[in-house]
Amino acid sequence: MQRSDHRPATLIPGGAVFPHRHLTGIEGLQPHEIMFLLDEAETWVEANRGHAAPDKRLAGYTQINAFFENSTRTLLSFEIAGKRLGADVVNMHAAQSSVKKGETLIDTAMTLNAMRADVIVIRHMSSGAVRLIADKVDCPVLNAGDGRHEHPTQALLDALTIRRRLGGIANKRVVICGDLLHSRVARSNILALTALAAEVRVCAPSTLMPPAIERFGVTPFTDFDRALEGADVVMMLRLQTERMAGGYVPSVREYHLRYGLTLDRLERYAPGALVMHPGPMNRGVEIDSAVADHVEQSAITEQVAMGVAVRMACLDVLTRRARGVEGWA
Amino acid sequence: MQRSDHRPATLIPGGAVFPHRHLTGIEGLQPHEIMFLLDEAETWVEANRGHAAPDKRLAGYTQINAFFENSTRTLLSFEIAGKRLGADVVNMHAAQSSVKKGETLIDTAMTLNAMRADVIVIRHMSSGAVRLIADKVDCPVLNAGDGRHEHPTQALLDALTIRRRLGGIANKRVVICGDLLHSRVARSNILALTALAAEVRVCAPSTLMPPAIERFGVTPFTDFDRALEGADVVMMLRLQTERMAGGYVPSVREYHLRYGLTLDRLERYAPGALVMHPGPMNRGVEIDSAVADHVEQSAITEQVAMGVAVRMACLDVLTRRARGVEGWA
Amino acid sequence: MQRSDHRPATLIPGGAVFPHRHLTGIEGLQPHEIMFLLDEAETWVEANRGHAAPDKRLAGYTQINAFFENSTRTLLSFEIAGKRLGADVVNMHAAQSSVKKGETLIDTAMTLNAMRADVIVIRHMSSGAVRLIADKVDCPVLNAGDGRHEHPTQALLDALTIRRRLGGIANKRVVICGDLLHSRVARSNILALTALAAEVRVCAPSTLMPPAIERFGVTPFTDFDRALEGADVVMMLRLQTERMAGGYVPSVREYHLRYGLTLDRLERYAPGALVMHPGPMNRGVEIDSAVADHVEQSAITEQVAMGVAVRMACLDVLTRRARGVEGWA
Repeated sequence: MQRSDHRPATLIPGGAVFPHRHLTGIEGLQPHEIMFLLDEAETWVEANRGHAAPDKRLAGYTQINAFFENSTRTLLSFEIAGKRLGADVVNMHAAQSSVKKGETLIDTAMTLNAMRADVIVIRHMSSGAVRLIADKVDCPVLNAGDGRHEHPTQALLDALTIRRRLGGIANKRVVICGDLLHSRVARSNILALTALAAEVRVCAPSTLMPPAIERFGVTPFTDFDRALEGADVVMMLRLQTERMAGGYVPSVREYHLRYGLTLDRLERYAPGALVMHPGPMNRGVEIDSAVADHVEQSAITEQVAMGVAVRMACLDVLTRRARGVEGWA
Repeated sequence: MQRSDHRPATLIPGGAVFPHRHLTGIEGLQPHEIMFLLDEAETWVEANRGHAAPDKRLAGYTQINAFFENSTRTLLSFEIAGKRLGADVVNMHAAQSSVKKGETLIDTAMTLNAMRADVIVIRHMSSGAVRLIADKVDCPVLNAGDGRHEHPTQALLDALTIRRRLGGIANKRVVICGDLLHSRVARSNILALTALAAEVRVCAPSTLMPPAIERFGVTPFTDFDRALEGADVVMMLRLQTERMAGGYVPSVREYHLRYGLTLDRLERYAPGALVMHPGPMNRGVEIDSAVADHVEQSAITEQVAMGVAVRMACLDVLTRRARGVEGWA
Repeated sequence: MQRSDHRPATLIPGGAVFPHRHLTGIEGLQPHEIMFLLDEAETWVEANRGHAAPDKRLAGYTQINAFFENSTRTLLSFEIAGKRLGADVVNMHAAQSSVKKGETLIDTAMTLNAMRADVIVIRHMSSGAVRLIADKVDCPVLNAGDGRHEHPTQALLDALTIRRRLGGIANKRVVICGDLLHSRVARSNILALTALAAEVRVCAPSTLMPPAIERFGVTPFTDFDRALEGADVVMMLRLQTERMAGGYVPSVREYHLRYGLTLDRLERYAPGALVMHPGPMNRGVEIDSAVADHVEQSAITEQVAMGVAVRMACLDVLTRRARGVEGWA
């Protein structure tokens, strides 16, 4: 499918263009800007499904994926997105890099910049590292997850999945359950979903619930059954192995009993609710297989598919200025 | 060299197309189907030798190499094959991936599938893992080696090498010598060569010889000298380091004495025979340098070259249906 | 920017073409050949800066980066250079490869060759390994650093940086300071800079100074302050962590005191000198941040940018013969 860069649809409703140079988080985005990114992603969904004539609009542009923290799925998704757009995609596996030789993060960033990256995708174990790099380089920076801070493309792909499956996001009751204390996925999702006027409930054992989370406009629960009542969407978070061992949960068995999404629990408290999980799943821990593989209600593999579309949209939108796309220069 | 997808030659003799969706093994392939893949590979040999105008027929298609077991050579070969055809090639180094985080193999497969892979190349330490994935995904799957099961492209490249060097495979006496018990290379080669009517002899110490191997239509030997008599081809298998330490062979020195291919042994028992090895070689263990580097008789580097051609052919053939190539849709 | 392969500028002044098949080192290059490579690199600098129409002259050609020693920066630079030229770039991470399985270096080289690499970029921990491989393969080989021997593209990018910043290299006083004993960067730079008629001073503690270094046409100093007097360029070498622990320097603090480039030292002894470092830097050890980040005098990030241009030039020039570029066939 040939797409034109000059369609009015590339403009934000009201005629303005996406005004941000980087995408370091959902925080700071206006609701209509989030919707704009979802609309852009929507245009790539079909292109990704069929085997259409490729649209290599990033041909000649260099995308560097600088992953200071391993993540096979997210790296694959960004790499496929960039290559589908024709970019020269280069992966920097920073775990085995000069970072180890004691180079500062800023020096690494300056190096990537000097090689003339056109867009840098960064994943880092430290909250705020992406922002630090974004301030130093000449090109757009995309956050692929930093510490406990944000994972904006995950929130966008989740929002896109909900919008496609339920027809909209506003006024939907979304329950996010799991390790809210350490989860950047939860943080970005809370920011995006509340901005888009969803009713967000969060549920976790008290040891994994951030203090004063109500200030984000969400309602906290420690009782999963109560949280689920009337839910349109149940979003389960991965229980990181280190939490299991870290004293945050009494035992995996106990966690599953109280916070695992079983088919029985789903049918009793949230029949018909959409089931989501950012992956990789711990089957039998936070989610049971009967739920994960539910033909009608599980949207988990669709989330992965939307991930590629969302990342294509972000790569495209953020590089428009540099590419001199009309209205963006 | 510009090639046309519509040549009659892309059809199997008799007018049928290659009927398999995946290539998980040689088992289940008809002899004319094996010959068809060899014919297809043959058309890429010249293209690979010169620096011809590239034929990027897989442009816009995504090939994911999911290697759950390290293999630099095989990965390189598949990556080069895919890139020569213009595919967007993405490597998933699964050793450092979400697999480690406890994700099931099926979930990993579903993830790759959801990103819309057009073909997935898999290497896995477990026999049958590739078949398991093939059953779950929408795209063709190519086995790049699974456990002790199969390594079909290795058998195809070996058959192609023999056919090119000796003019044919039928009635040629091929001796396969080494660790037959653990070798997927041997297994796929036995299946391919017997299907193509070669006379196959296998030779190993009794500790490394599978029981009842005669049922595959091969003749077992424990005496290497006797096995070599009248051989047209000698195919040496790599002695894995773990076998050396595992009590399967009394000592490396003893193994070399009885099962190593020395120049003296070659000249005495199989003068003029073609020498093959799947690599990487343990020089001085299963094969001596004078044999490995034999100008006329060693086909070892030619095997590597044929590997790229065979993999190009397999990637091309398996994706024809999805690409809507005439006669395949 | 569209460039033509047939411009007279691709010929070395005097009408000859670059006569070397490989680039294994600066040693053996004539001064006009070095200048020719710098001129070629110069033509890529602008192309790399803007976002010009890409010139994919290596489309259909295969570049294998065989890195037996990790180096994120150099690998990234070569990978970006090759991809900008349209090559099919394949990385072989040899640290996790068949090399580990006991395969000889020559066998690995023959394997890469048999896959029909059009150019091989090699980094290896052993001096001379690159030359060994170059002798065995049919395609051009580019040395990306071997042991203590050479790192020719680093010397070329350094020379290009100096030429662009100071208008020339001849008669400039260049001080190279640091671990001269183990540094291939220093070695290649000394060869290149003396060939181009710079006045080269080298400075190191006596434990890190090679014996009889005067035979390379350089002047050795152990007193950094004296070495700096009248310098046009100060090139600092990285103090490898293993040197710090290896008894070569009394302590990091002591090293910094005597051989660290501080702003005070720079302003006092070499005001206005260009400051260079091959990276990654140990800030506070061999170089202070105030110097590394000096807006006018530091050329460190420019070096990185020149690296990509130099590597594009080398990849282009070395493959001209195989590509049948006029005058090179």
